[in-house]
Amino acid sequence: MSRIVRFHETGGPEVLKIENVEVPAPREGEVQIRARALGMNRAEVMFRTGQYVTEPQFPAISGYEAAGVIEKVGPGVEGFELGDKVSVVPCFMLGEYGLHGELVNAPAFGVVKHPENLSWEQAAATWMMFTTAYGALVDIAKVQPGDVVLIRAASSSVGLAAIQIVNMLGGVSVALTRGGSKRDTLLAAGAQHVIATTEQDLVAEVKKITSGKGARIAFDPVGGSEVPKILEALSFLGIFFQYGALDFSDVPVPVLALLGKDLTIRGYQLFEITKDPQRLEQAKAFIVEGLASGALKPVIAKTFKLDEIVEATRFMESNEQVGKIVLTV
Amino acid sequence: MSRIVRFHETGGPEVLKIENVEVPAPREGEVQIRARALGMNRAEVMFRTGQYVTEPQFPAISGYEAAGVIEKVGPGVEGFELGDKVSVVPCFMLGEYGLHGELVNAPAFGVVKHPENLSWEQAAATWMMFTTAYGALVDIAKVQPGDVVLIRAASSSVGLAAIQIVNMLGGVSVALTRGGSKRDTLLAAGAQHVIATTEQDLVAEVKKITSGKGARIAFDPVGGSEVPKILEALSFLGIFFQYGALDFSDVPVPVLALLGKDLTIRGYQLFEITKDPQRLEQAKAFIVEGLASGALKPVIAKTFKLDEIVEATRFMESNEQVGKIVLTV
Repeated sequence: MSRIVRFHETGGPEVLKIENVEVPAPREGEVQIRARALGMNRAEVMFRTGQYVTEPQFPAISGYEAAGVIEKVGPGVEGFELGDKVSVVPCFMLGEYGLHGELVNAPAFGVVKHPENLSWEQAAATWMMFTTAYGALVDIAKVQPGDVVLIRAASSSVGLAAIQIVNMLGGVSVALTRGGSKRDTLLAAGAQHVIATTEQDLVAEVKKITSGKGARIAFDPVGGSEVPKILEALSFLGIFFQYGALDFSDVPVPVLALLGKDLTIRGYQLFEITKDPQRLEQAKAFIVEGLASGALKPVIAKTFKLDEIVEATRFMESNEQVGKIVLTV
Repeated sequence: MSRIVRFHETGGPEVLKIENVEVPAPREGEVQIRARALGMNRAEVMFRTGQYVTEPQFPAISGYEAAGVIEKVGPGVEGFELGDKVSVVPCFMLGEYGLHGELVNAPAFGVVKHPENLSWEQAAATWMMFTTAYGALVDIAKVQPGDVVLIRAASSSVGLAAIQIVNMLGGVSVALTRGGSKRDTLLAAGAQHVIATTEQDLVAEVKKITSGKGARIAFDPVGGSEVPKILEALSFLGIFFQYGALDFSDVPVPVLALLGKDLTIRGYQLFEITKDPQRLEQAKAFIVEGLASGALKPVIAKTFKLDEIVEATRFMESNEQVGKIVLTV
């Protein structure tokens, strides 16, 4: 019997229960992991409240990220042995798998032997943040030295990962944050510039940074009515990524900006990368190299115990954190 | 002295006058062409009425397209000799050059010795239509055999060029037109499917054609409130090109379509191609090959004499034409 996070109805954080269950053996293409640390993600909130792309089937399991030790290897899986230290790249929809528990099954093609210099907590915090930022900035937009990248919601874990990846590639990381309260934190996290969008003129500030040219890339999990201003701050052939929908309203795209600068507006979710075996392997290689060299370093906002899943979830929903919330097992 | 189309104030077609002027010798990087045929474009209407990206300086000259014989070669120009039969790729803003006249100067890097099998009228009609469609569909989207391409305003000259290019590459050309009145004309022009968007359910029809998968590409000079329906008809990783702004209102982009299918919305003007020497050379080579083989064939709606510039312009503004309006000199 192993202790697993489950819920039997949609609702607030309090529906999450830790229950003793018999975890089935890994099936073909799966490995079983004895978890040491678990990462938490906002998509789990959407799943728990019934707003995710798939509906939970009760009793439901959840969780995208885990790090631990291989306990069993399912049929047909090569490259892993009992005792390997691994972590999991999110490459499934919630409902297909759920990694929040002591003993969990995961699809082997998303499992990585991460570098030895990572703690369990860091390994559990790595993959959602870095793979999401990597896919847009490296795989698709191919950030080059000198490229200016506007990073909205920059104190989120993916935002912080974007700052690190842009810096690693010689680009110019520009953190966008609403008020000025997180300015020092973002500068300490590596942002080369910080623009507080409720206090400063975004377009004028970006012009200053880019000598009037505009930024080549914007990376935004929000969307909504602020987007036209961000598009105005982009250069000729600029790319705007929307990788989340914190604002569900239609994005109003001004046609003259779109046409006049030959802009690209790109919807992006990391599954575009993680469901494609070739692109996933390139992502793993890039991130493992960055982690090993120290250029990339997962940012952990706060650590809780598995037993504190409800408190940890409440903290995540408060939006006060800078970086990733991790559960230790 | 040569006869040139000029205007001295913004206004309706009647402000266009044919005047005798002394055409200056070609400057460095220019050639002088004795025109035999001229192509007409909607952007000239915007320029004449003061709605174009540059303001006309009076007396203003206009016109994007011409075919004729090299009469003089400016300093520093190589590769052209007196008597060469040439036509001009639009690679300048109106206000910089104007090609509607008997004797005109043009920037040599946009001038092409077109295939011998083209008439003067066809040569004058070629470059705007095929280069615009080529840039989006071939240079950027890289149409592959089997790709389904939705072509809005399909009876415009660029729309007809898109049909031909998609067919040439083994793709599936789907013409979108408002009512059903142009259905037969579009089928005769090569469209593999025609959808009359005011009479048929666009999304359902595209699903039928694509076995539920959606179209990979849409190519639209209009924009506006119909765009969400076209986005709904696209596949995973679909690309929507907006290459004109017949509707000036903001494009409302539904965020769940954008994210759920990792869509790309791409603003595009042909100058992205024609101002880049390398991409321009690739465009010329592709189009010259297609013209020479007969796979590409300019569609001429109606021919007028240069003296009939006002009537020709009125006809263009009526939107009744299918294909290009050409003036003979």
